[in-house]
Amino acid sequence: MRTLIQGGSVVSTAGERRGDVLVVDEKIVQVGFDLDGADSVIDADGCLVLPGLIDHHTHLAMPTGGTTTCDDFDTGTAAAAAGGTTCIVDFALQTDGSLKRGLEAWHEKAEGRAHIDYGFHMAVTDASDTALAEIPDLVSGGVTTFKVFMAYKGAFMVDDLQILRVMRSAAEVGATVLAHAENGDAVELLVREALAAGRVDPVWHGRTRPAHVEAEATSRVIHLAGWCECPLFVVHVTCEQALREVQRARDDGHQVHAEACVHHLVLTEAEMARDEFDGARFVCSPPLRTTADQEALWAGLRQGALESCSTDHCAFTLAQKEAGRGDFSLIPNGLPSIEHRLNLLYEHGVRRGRLSLGKLVDLTSTTPARRFGLAPCKGEVAPGADADLVIFDPERPVTISAATHHTASDYDPFEGWTCAGSPRMVLSRGEVVVDDGRIVSAPGRGRYIARAAG
Amino acid sequence: MRTLIQGGSVVSTAGERRGDVLVVDEKIVQVGFDLDGADSVIDADGCLVLPGLIDHHTHLAMPTGGTTTCDDFDTGTAAAAAGGTTCIVDFALQTDGSLKRGLEAWHEKAEGRAHIDYGFHMAVTDASDTALAEIPDLVSGGVTTFKVFMAYKGAFMVDDLQILRVMRSAAEVGATVLAHAENGDAVELLVREALAAGRVDPVWHGRTRPAHVEAEATSRVIHLAGWCECPLFVVHVTCEQALREVQRARDDGHQVHAEACVHHLVLTEAEMARDEFDGARFVCSPPLRTTADQEALWAGLRQGALESCSTDHCAFTLAQKEAGRGDFSLIPNGLPSIEHRLNLLYEHGVRRGRLSLGKLVDLTSTTPARRFGLAPCKGEVAPGADADLVIFDPERPVTISAATHHTASDYDPFEGWTCAGSPRMVLSRGEVVVDDGRIVSAPGRGRYIARAAG
Amino acid sequence: MRTLIQGGSVVSTAGERRGDVLVVDEKIVQVGFDLDGADSVIDADGCLVLPGLIDHHTHLAMPTGGTTTCDDFDTGTAAAAAGGTTCIVDFALQTDGSLKRGLEAWHEKAEGRAHIDYGFHMAVTDASDTALAEIPDLVSGGVTTFKVFMAYKGAFMVDDLQILRVMRSAAEVGATVLAHAENGDAVELLVREALAAGRVDPVWHGRTRPAHVEAEATSRVIHLAGWCECPLFVVHVTCEQALREVQRARDDGHQVHAEACVHHLVLTEAEMARDEFDGARFVCSPPLRTTADQEALWAGLRQGALESCSTDHCAFTLAQKEAGRGDFSLIPNGLPSIEHRLNLLYEHGVRRGRLSLGKLVDLTSTTPARRFGLAPCKGEVAPGADADLVIFDPERPVTISAATHHTASDYDPFEGWTCAGSPRMVLSRGEVVVDDGRIVSAPGRGRYIARAAG
Amino acid sequence: MRTLIQGGSVVSTAGERRGDVLVVDEKIVQVGFDLDGADSVIDADGCLVLPGLIDHHTHLAMPTGGTTTCDDFDTGTAAAAAGGTTCIVDFALQTDGSLKRGLEAWHEKAEGRAHIDYGFHMAVTDASDTALAEIPDLVSGGVTTFKVFMAYKGAFMVDDLQILRVMRSAAEVGATVLAHAENGDAVELLVREALAAGRVDPVWHGRTRPAHVEAEATSRVIHLAGWCECPLFVVHVTCEQALREVQRARDDGHQVHAEACVHHLVLTEAEMARDEFDGARFVCSPPLRTTADQEALWAGLRQGALESCSTDHCAFTLAQKEAGRGDFSLIPNGLPSIEHRLNLLYEHGVRRGRLSLGKLVDLTSTTPARRFGLAPCKGEVAPGADADLVIFDPERPVTISAATHHTASDYDPFEGWTCAGSPRMVLSRGEVVVDDGRIVSAPGRGRYIARAAG
Repeated sequence: MRTLIQGGSVVSTAGERRGDVLVVDEKIVQVGFDLDGADSVIDADGCLVLPGLIDHHTHLAMPTGGTTTCDDFDTGTAAAAAGGTTCIVDFALQTDGSLKRGLEAWHEKAEGRAHIDYGFHMAVTDASDTALAEIPDLVSGGVTTFKVFMAYKGAFMVDDLQILRVMRSAAEVGATVLAHAENGDAVELLVREALAAGRVDPVWHGRTRPAHVEAEATSRVIHLAGWCECPLFVVHVTCEQALREVQRARDDGHQVHAEACVHHLVLTEAEMARDEFDGARFVCSPPLRTTADQEALWAGLRQGALESCSTDHCAFTLAQKEAGRGDFSLIPNGLPSIEHRLNLLYEHGVRRGRLSLGKLVDLTSTTPARRFGLAPCKGEVAPGADADLVIFDPERPVTISAATHHTASDYDPFEGWTCAGSPRMVLSRGEVVVDDGRIVSAPGRGRYIARAAG
Repeated sequence: MRTLIQGGSVVSTAGERRGDVLVVDEKIVQVGFDLDGADSVIDADGCLVLPGLIDHHTHLAMPTGGTTTCDDFDTGTAAAAAGGTTCIVDFALQTDGSLKRGLEAWHEKAEGRAHIDYGFHMAVTDASDTALAEIPDLVSGGVTTFKVFMAYKGAFMVDDLQILRVMRSAAEVGATVLAHAENGDAVELLVREALAAGRVDPVWHGRTRPAHVEAEATSRVIHLAGWCECPLFVVHVTCEQALREVQRARDDGHQVHAEACVHHLVLTEAEMARDEFDGARFVCSPPLRTTADQEALWAGLRQGALESCSTDHCAFTLAQKEAGRGDFSLIPNGLPSIEHRLNLLYEHGVRRGRLSLGKLVDLTSTTPARRFGLAPCKGEVAPGADADLVIFDPERPVTISAATHHTASDYDPFEGWTCAGSPRMVLSRGEVVVDDGRIVSAPGRGRYIARAAG
Repeated sequence: MRTLIQGGSVVSTAGERRGDVLVVDEKIVQVGFDLDGADSVIDADGCLVLPGLIDHHTHLAMPTGGTTTCDDFDTGTAAAAAGGTTCIVDFALQTDGSLKRGLEAWHEKAEGRAHIDYGFHMAVTDASDTALAEIPDLVSGGVTTFKVFMAYKGAFMVDDLQILRVMRSAAEVGATVLAHAENGDAVELLVREALAAGRVDPVWHGRTRPAHVEAEATSRVIHLAGWCECPLFVVHVTCEQALREVQRARDDGHQVHAEACVHHLVLTEAEMARDEFDGARFVCSPPLRTTADQEALWAGLRQGALESCSTDHCAFTLAQKEAGRGDFSLIPNGLPSIEHRLNLLYEHGVRRGRLSLGKLVDLTSTTPARRFGLAPCKGEVAPGADADLVIFDPERPVTISAATHHTASDYDPFEGWTCAGSPRMVLSRGEVVVDDGRIVSAPGRGRYIARAAG
Repeated sequence: MRTLIQGGSVVSTAGERRGDVLVVDEKIVQVGFDLDGADSVIDADGCLVLPGLIDHHTHLAMPTGGTTTCDDFDTGTAAAAAGGTTCIVDFALQTDGSLKRGLEAWHEKAEGRAHIDYGFHMAVTDASDTALAEIPDLVSGGVTTFKVFMAYKGAFMVDDLQILRVMRSAAEVGATVLAHAENGDAVELLVREALAAGRVDPVWHGRTRPAHVEAEATSRVIHLAGWCECPLFVVHVTCEQALREVQRARDDGHQVHAEACVHHLVLTEAEMARDEFDGARFVCSPPLRTTADQEALWAGLRQGALESCSTDHCAFTLAQKEAGRGDFSLIPNGLPSIEHRLNLLYEHGVRRGRLSLGKLVDLTSTTPARRFGLAPCKGEVAPGADADLVIFDPERPVTISAATHHTASDYDPFEGWTCAGSPRMVLSRGEVVVDDGRIVSAPGRGRYIARAAG
């Protein structure tokens, strides 16, 4: 099977450049002009041809706080694909004390359901000797990144000693540690105090997790990683203060990487203050911040301290969110956003002059592919790479709505927002999975990717 | 009883200035020239008349790690007085879960033994609701400062949530929190690893508590205090990295205070590497650092980020130190230094051009008096103040030795060091307690000072 | 002549303390209780007894831009005294290329006119070999501080090479360099552009001298001084950005000193935007800034990066200010403020909780006396010091007005402001110069003070 | 003409990737596998296929200090090509007060001589109204970058006002300002003092241009550019202190770009101290620094604050260097290095683990092409781009020597150094210009490139 994608502009980190792409079976084989011998032709006239996006921060079918995120690997990856994402790295959780059992559980969740390729990070919630001893096997099995939570005291949170132990073990086998950086003790205190004072509305979720609580934890985990000489990736940096800590460390030569998540770039804390419990739709951790923080994040993406942009997709239904009516601390934390990243970044980043096209591709595909061990198969439109491609039409407007989105959530935090451009077609390993906005792939075609160390 | 101290130069924070001092009973009544009506005259010709030093960081008769510091309130305060210190603030420990019982215990230890006046800080090692509820009563009783340990995991160490709770409670009643800033989790890991690798000598005490471990905790506790709007005093800053965190916070307008301790100014980590377990004599926490750190500390004292200089006197005998032969982690932590602060600061500070005389007085008396609620009685040579006075002769050389010192410890970390100047006489509330190097006071004359909030 | 000041509270940097002061002729002889043998008694009941303030930044009878500041040494020092200032250090200017001739000229201006004691700084506006060669003689004559202007291009401004040469020469003889830090080139460009665009109103004075222009010059002059190992004093720091540069340098151990001036603490840029050319009354350089800058300055005074507070008194009449109607760049730069510093600092500093009383005395008297070589005669209420004293009544309200002030200017920038406290009496070397707000001294009684190196 | 480059690994900023390259005439037309229809085949087996390097900082045939750099556009570009550089941007100088005349002069120098493509920056040494008025025409003519010198007082140096005027004019037309950042006044003073003290040897060149002199100017020019909102490119950052200023500005969101030059990465100040005037061979400005600075620069390249690496090729013969025997200040400033950049960066960067291959391409080709308006023709191995290609053999060792190099200089600062890899072949617009180390092109084939704004 030889498919020619013709007439588009191929985008790399260096920018866009006219050129056709010849796909043979699952792979890109040629890029250039006057390519021939194709069985079929996809017209990309007027379109950008992007490497499929990688979403290295998703939470599908994840049990948390007595419920489970509402997207499984079928609905979640379908929504991802609809938005131009062709590979995810989902967070598996340590299960019954074991990392291996956790990994097995996540393989089961994904098996037969995914529309696109996927890998796993592993969250370590109890750094026991047993668990740490499993790390080398996980790395051999393609799980080369281990997450620690500095927040969610009493649940996922681990103390500094545990973090250090994970880092030591990870560093020995070349793995990277990912950190959710908020001072969970401070959050615990502020939440207790707020509830004791009768402050139960969703807006208090944000007020009990202020920016400096994130900044302190960011600074601390950078120190911890430095002591262990362990590569560190700080997930979801949300505010200027935390960004400053990342910058300071990088200026000092520390091997610290960090991302921003798309919702923190375009939504603000004002959403949490909506009437009638509507704020609950926007409850996530770390919480939404100010417009000044947004601008700092955009600048950080341009300047390089933030190297990638994922979604932290963690979807719940409105019914699930109801659990926290009368007590904000019981609202499940997370937003559905897996489907909208490309459209939002193009609209709010590229069209508003905050990001170049090359930078968009860098942030969402090329750099994540290299950081998370998915290169050289993923991350570029180049001969030899998987034919994971987005035919993005900058003049195909869409209006976001729960009525049309593909996630299982019954609301959309971006309801009614319009984006000027959107994918016309999405290919995964040469197969069209999205055509004119419709999912045309079957669940289960996506494959597990054993990842190399980044 | 009217005593005239005649012919000396009175030192204040503004510098030295010729002048006589008239003491009536326990108080200074006049300063100036042509004072008369004295019953007796003390000749201070060629001498500096300093306000008695305050040592706001001592550990007398303190149980720790299965033993007890070897100086009680008799030997400890005698040694203090011999060195020009006329008031101490000692650390009482929470006892049987209770702050009040701790305070009672320390009152008992001091009662009938002290040669000079004393107050207490209270160390909170378990921030239970009960303990926190006792704080207001302690403040009423003159204990206005509460210490938390971020190190000594499994013993004194409390987690961030406990620290925050102490800070909240302290802030409500205008009290100050003191912090021992080292990341106890990191120390725990490094110690375990060192011992597992057979590294058991005293030098490993220092190597398992590196400077950045102190810097991180310093940064963190400043954040914690900021969140609680609680006045913070960081005890024993020992290294440039931690100092930088204090400076950064102060530049940002945070109400952060900090001290250096005298041994960190004049001894280095090289001492811990001495042969034949001799390094154990120098084991303290945070440990001795580098000469570069020493210079940074001296600069910090001049520049203002470090506002005072105490001793952290925590004395053990060589027999007690033996507990850690074969396992450095069991060496009792601490040095005897209560007696030598003035002589060492004059020798290594004033004579070497690092400190002015006014600054010496500021660091050791005037500022501690105000910070720790001992002013206006203590901290100045001024009418109305207690007649706590040091007649310091800059040309009265002494050689430090365990053979002549007054502490109960049987070694001296400064053995054989010579200082050009030393106290000729020390008065406490008008009474001569030290005369020509001899203790002439009786135990028990010292009084408890109920301190105001700083 | 023996005068007893009875019943007040003497204020030192360490705070206030009840006590009487015995003055014999020109000197303070005793401080304390039960002092006797006085010929006369001044009742200081309910009052604070402060060391007379030092104003180390004044411009009396100074030719500038075709005119001359309207206060001479008679009116200027009378106004100073009325406000509790008992010593000034005025800026002499290099004259006809010579520092010596400049000094002679200023001696002539002062001779027979001053009500209080005075010294001189020397401004070097052309660092020729001849001028530099005069520096040692000036130092011998008691002028130990040399000022350079980094702004006023085409007038006072010197380039970096000249600044470096002054610093080299000053450092050799232990003198200090004072710097007016604004990038004069940037100001020149902005002024030209503003005028070319028809922006001629007083408000444009401020807009053409933005904060970062001061910050850059501050950073630069700190570098220059560092290269020459020359003590540096940055005059009139006005904004947070410049303060940050001072803090950064001090944290790094550089010997950098800096002051704030009182008008920058209490007035904002909004004044320059007043209607009808009224803004011209507030035109000074660096210009008035924002309320955020004010708070940063207050914090800097508390934190220590700003060590003193002077006035930069540089008075003009409204007629003189008229020169700049239609062209803001021709408005003479400066405000009359020499009389109000103490009242304003007490009102806006002490009463509003921004400064302690001890800090006020430190900033306005004790530290300037030491920095500028006026100690031990000036700067303290202590035996042996000159009896320069302010009997300050915290409950003696005054309303500031041109109708009642003592400067020769015919307007007052603080017109109508009320201060709760004010001096009841001011003594200079034992002589009452101000009594109940009236000047009772004769011009010419003030003496020149040859200053030591700081 | 259709040429197939077969069997190599194509390198982009994203890394290396197997693939063939089809060149048709001057352009790359296809990249991939199974390309056919070629007239000829170049065997790239075992080789890396890099985009031709861009050297955006060269000084060919430049008059300076009474002499002229010894490489003209023939020898200089031949040497460049031999080292894998296929495009240079040379510095034209304002001539007879005019930018246009300067540009004409440089066009004449280049015409008929260049082996590879070239563009021009324009150095503004007198920012007169006339000169500034020429800027728009130069931009139209493809000169979109304007350089200012903050050093070389009395020669190229301009003051801040002139820099600001250039920046204003440049910013208006979207041009970028390049700055040589050293405080020329400080250098002037230090040089005068050194010569006066009889310090005339080459080593004093470095000692009179210390790192902080560069750091101050770097900080200042960043401020100046910020005030004018003018894009800024700091040339040849050489030391950690200057790098810190760039980082600080970028962290704050300023649009500041900067480069390192290859000699500062691999040579140190020790070279200037060689005996017998040999140090003169290494005299350049800013001077060579320490090994610590080198590591800081490598880290800055990785971390992103330094975005590119050029040569600052400025060649002289030993006879020319003799001018400064007996007076280091007369030694012509500059080194020949245009030929060795790729080999040195591969050896000291890639092979020693300091740079990835993708980063090397980014620093030397892709980013310079975009920054300096040479993209999309230059900077990538991609369809549509000029066929400027380097067939780099990582196992083709070379030993650098004046006996074999192509520059007109009669010495080589890297004499005797061995590099493991080197170019096997270099193509410029499809034509082989270097084959197995030999120049096979004729002078004059290189074309002028009118550059767009970056």
